[in-house]
Amino acid sequence: MGDIVRELDPLFNPRSVAVIGATNSWNKWGYSTFSSIIQSFEGKVYPVNLKEDKILGRKAYKKVGDIPDDVDLVIFVIPAEIVPGVMEECSAKGVKAAVIITAGFRETGKDGRDLENEVIRAAKKGGIRFVGPNCMGIWSASSKLKAYMFPFPTIDGPIAFVSQGGNVGGAVVMSAFKRGIGFHRYVSCGPAADIQIEDYIEYFGDDPDVKVILTYIEGLSDGKRFIEKVSKVTRKKPVIALKPGRTEAAAHAILSHSGAIAGSNVIYNEAFKKSGVLRTESPEELLDLAVGFLTQPLPSGRNVAIVTGGGSYGVICSEYCETLGLRVIDLPEETIEAFSKIFPPRWSHGNPVDPAGDRNFIAYYAAPQMLLELDQVDSLIFMGFGSISGFTSMISSSGGDHIFFQPSTDLFSSITGIDEIIAEVLIAIKAGDIDKLNSFMKPMMPIISSVMGTNPDTMDKFVSMIMDEQITRDVFAELIKIFPGFLIDGTVGIEILLEKFDKLVSSLLFSFMKKYKKPIISTTFSESAPILEGAAHPFPTAEKAAMVLSKMVEYREYLERVDSFEDPLKYCTILNYEFN
Amino acid sequence: MGDIVRELDPLFNPRSVAVIGATNSWNKWGYSTFSSIIQSFEGKVYPVNLKEDKILGRKAYKKVGDIPDDVDLVIFVIPAEIVPGVMEECSAKGVKAAVIITAGFRETGKDGRDLENEVIRAAKKGGIRFVGPNCMGIWSASSKLKAYMFPFPTIDGPIAFVSQGGNVGGAVVMSAFKRGIGFHRYVSCGPAADIQIEDYIEYFGDDPDVKVILTYIEGLSDGKRFIEKVSKVTRKKPVIALKPGRTEAAAHAILSHSGAIAGSNVIYNEAFKKSGVLRTESPEELLDLAVGFLTQPLPSGRNVAIVTGGGSYGVICSEYCETLGLRVIDLPEETIEAFSKIFPPRWSHGNPVDPAGDRNFIAYYAAPQMLLELDQVDSLIFMGFGSISGFTSMISSSGGDHIFFQPSTDLFSSITGIDEIIAEVLIAIKAGDIDKLNSFMKPMMPIISSVMGTNPDTMDKFVSMIMDEQITRDVFAELIKIFPGFLIDGTVGIEILLEKFDKLVSSLLFSFMKKYKKPIISTTFSESAPILEGAAHPFPTAEKAAMVLSKMVEYREYLERVDSFEDPLKYCTILNYEFN
Repeated sequence: MGDIVRELDPLFNPRSVAVIGATNSWNKWGYSTFSSIIQSFEGKVYPVNLKEDKILGRKAYKKVGDIPDDVDLVIFVIPAEIVPGVMEECSAKGVKAAVIITAGFRETGKDGRDLENEVIRAAKKGGIRFVGPNCMGIWSASSKLKAYMFPFPTIDGPIAFVSQGGNVGGAVVMSAFKRGIGFHRYVSCGPAADIQIEDYIEYFGDDPDVKVILTYIEGLSDGKRFIEKVSKVTRKKPVIALKPGRTEAAAHAILSHSGAIAGSNVIYNEAFKKSGVLRTESPEELLDLAVGFLTQPLPSGRNVAIVTGGGSYGVICSEYCETLGLRVIDLPEETIEAFSKIFPPRWSHGNPVDPAGDRNFIAYYAAPQMLLELDQVDSLIFMGFGSISGFTSMISSSGGDHIFFQPSTDLFSSITGIDEIIAEVLIAIKAGDIDKLNSFMKPMMPIISSVMGTNPDTMDKFVSMIMDEQITRDVFAELIKIFPGFLIDGTVGIEILLEKFDKLVSSLLFSFMKKYKKPIISTTFSESAPILEGAAHPFPTAEKAAMVLSKMVEYREYLERVDSFEDPLKYCTILNYEFN
Repeated sequence: MGDIVRELDPLFNPRSVAVIGATNSWNKWGYSTFSSIIQSFEGKVYPVNLKEDKILGRKAYKKVGDIPDDVDLVIFVIPAEIVPGVMEECSAKGVKAAVIITAGFRETGKDGRDLENEVIRAAKKGGIRFVGPNCMGIWSASSKLKAYMFPFPTIDGPIAFVSQGGNVGGAVVMSAFKRGIGFHRYVSCGPAADIQIEDYIEYFGDDPDVKVILTYIEGLSDGKRFIEKVSKVTRKKPVIALKPGRTEAAAHAILSHSGAIAGSNVIYNEAFKKSGVLRTESPEELLDLAVGFLTQPLPSGRNVAIVTGGGSYGVICSEYCETLGLRVIDLPEETIEAFSKIFPPRWSHGNPVDPAGDRNFIAYYAAPQMLLELDQVDSLIFMGFGSISGFTSMISSSGGDHIFFQPSTDLFSSITGIDEIIAEVLIAIKAGDIDKLNSFMKPMMPIISSVMGTNPDTMDKFVSMIMDEQITRDVFAELIKIFPGFLIDGTVGIEILLEKFDKLVSSLLFSFMKKYKKPIISTTFSESAPILEGAAHPFPTAEKAAMVLSKMVEYREYLERVDSFEDPLKYCTILNYEFN
């Protein structure tokens, strides 16, 4: 166990926690902080308050020294002036770590800085390492501890995040929660008076449960130390940083926020480059990049192919890609010929691949594989994922009596016994009887073909996707189970059908990704489109897709430069999606 | 009536429409296009099909010449090869305008270009002006006509939009629909073989129902004509353009998409500057900017004040503002002193104004006015709108048994007769009896004060906001109506309370905006936060807020330079929000 692991472990894996300033007054931070801890942490929790005897039903202690038990971790939610004295008591008590939520230190000027130095001295006496001050707290998945200013929703996951901004950090964590993405550790570190940002990063680097590290930095106190420690971590896993302060106004705001010196932007760029840190421009990008690394392999180069359901989106995506240093490559003649066989004559005849309004969805979903097979294609951007279902739900919600997508009943009046056919298909799928499955599927092809507006050539591709299990059998079974309700008696609406279809596309993209070990970044066409769950994890804009891909290339190139590249799938954990 | 109005009016206000290629085959575009038109348009609609006699129950004609009535507008959904011949028939019939959805013209190469020229010649014979080819269609609110490839949801509103990209255009229109924002006209114009982008813009410029004009351009055929026509329009209303093509890949994609020559980026920049067009970088920005102009006054200068519920967000917002040429100004000493009276000592003592975790929400909502009153403040960015309610709903949805924000019952056990007090207050509000209202409100202050964690100073501010009707009385009434359910019997949850509270803040910001005629751009802290309705129309990120503000400043400066500035509220229509 390295020094840093020994020193920070009591913070993230304490056996007991004391909350100094816990209170029954519900509109104080001491109430919500205590409430957050008792709701999350399964070890012992002791409230400390000079005036109250019982807090939320638990016996309170006047002083930390009165607690008849060892205390590993102490949380401070008391006025700044009394923090140094209480820290002295903690040192005497043998406390190992602390989180100081209290503000009013260096960010307020000279007196505050003096007070902060007193706290540091008092903590040093007992060897206490502390988070903060002027922070919002921490989350540790391994001990289920939310030692935070208020209870906030988060789940366990592969990200570690240290943020000098409580609100930026909190917003990213909560945005991630909405997208089903979790954190192993989250630290709102404030001005980092004791434990430095590079210490947390070093600690996260040693933790096998952490796959990607995020950080929001306002200012570092020792740039050389940061480079030295962090450059060891970036060889093992990606470290992604947001660092404002290029402008005077931001530097000014930083000083009054965390009391940090923003420092020269050029120097930070240099430091990040030296240490292999990927720099981002917004809080949203931190999470987008984490999603990229966790769901996709590292691309082996800058060559990108684009499949788009809309020509103008292909144009915009190409623009972003090239602006960010990716190469939208020319396609070989054979590939163009192959696409000409499955697309209408008006297709784009190049990269971006745009079927130009073809209604043959099967061909559209066959396109990725035809591109990924090419050696010269390092990655794929697949545009418009979920657009059909999103669009359909928009139409339904707009309240109009729209008949688009409603198959006329006469078209399907000839179909009899579809229930029975599907039942047999499901049995064949369950039994893994590919031959039987095939013999049942073939007669269904004309029906599917008429629904999808497709042609026999692409239908064969579809069958082979199922037979090769590129389309997960369970997902396919789910889709065909609802066909009778959709085709015959109308009990299943088009929205449900398309939702299942999205899931099928998602599983298809996942299988391509696994087979070719190349990233497939998918996008929706509408930034306000609901973010879909699953392996595809589509980004809301082409801009984000290109940004994520370009940073993944940057990281791959860095790893190769420092001779640390191992496996393109190393950081890819596939969020929230179960495949057999 | 100008030439352009006379020429394009049959397109947007036809009395009768013929759909050539209308069909009963539900998986063809001729089906969904016809379906879209008959569901929307209230004038006469005639299907034309060589083989089918009846389409969706309506008598079909073999040729447009067979229709026993005048036809103003014709929609083409037939193969490219037969378009010229049918256009000849249309000319002979006396048709006035056409929309050619069919693709397969100049974008496919030399033969396609020849075919396109034939279509142009055939249309010229009868003086037919046409949209397209290779487009998705049009929407005209004045005739309720959706002559579009499929039924899509849209509402009437103050925006006109001409897009050379059907998908980019469609996504913006649908994204707008979700946000409750409507269009007066929308045109997917394709390569614009006949009617040019500047023609549409000129036409929109003359239409009093259009307040803001958006355009997506892949290539213009006559730059000088564009500058000449559009520079007259930009003096009257903002024209916002998205124009990709800075990179070779995008120029290449444009050629295969619309067949347009992307042209030099420098020349386009120059053309936009000369004609007063605001250039944006993404489809999402087109809509964001429209929202800015439609909901806010034009700022009179570059000086911005920021109110933030999170220090780090203040830092990031400052960075964006300065990067985009806005000035995050220093605050005068008196203002700093005034804030020190209502905020805790740890507040930021400058701009951005950050109360640093103060739980006194009233003070937070009083801050905007204190800044807007300053002559040197041209605009305000108000950060974190909706954060409290969004956050609370996150906590609820995370399924935890959280007790944060749940007032303990003993705190309110002393309150009796609150129902009666509120009933009297509501009567006083309805009667506009300010004195009576005041006499009822005063005794309630200690209760509100204890809930909000506020102090008497800021409470006075709150009372005066109600008395001055800065907080709309109806909105306030709605809020206090639910107080008994929240405080006493628990039948109203915190989410409902905060939702009403958001509405109150929204009305407050609106009244400030009206009073000071300065823009107040609000943001949420989470890009995936639901977009709230109302005057505040918060943007999801600081980046967007700063971008919108900077472009509004750019437009104001342009108007003043060309001596066309009239009124800061000229374009502001306040979407979807009723105030008394």
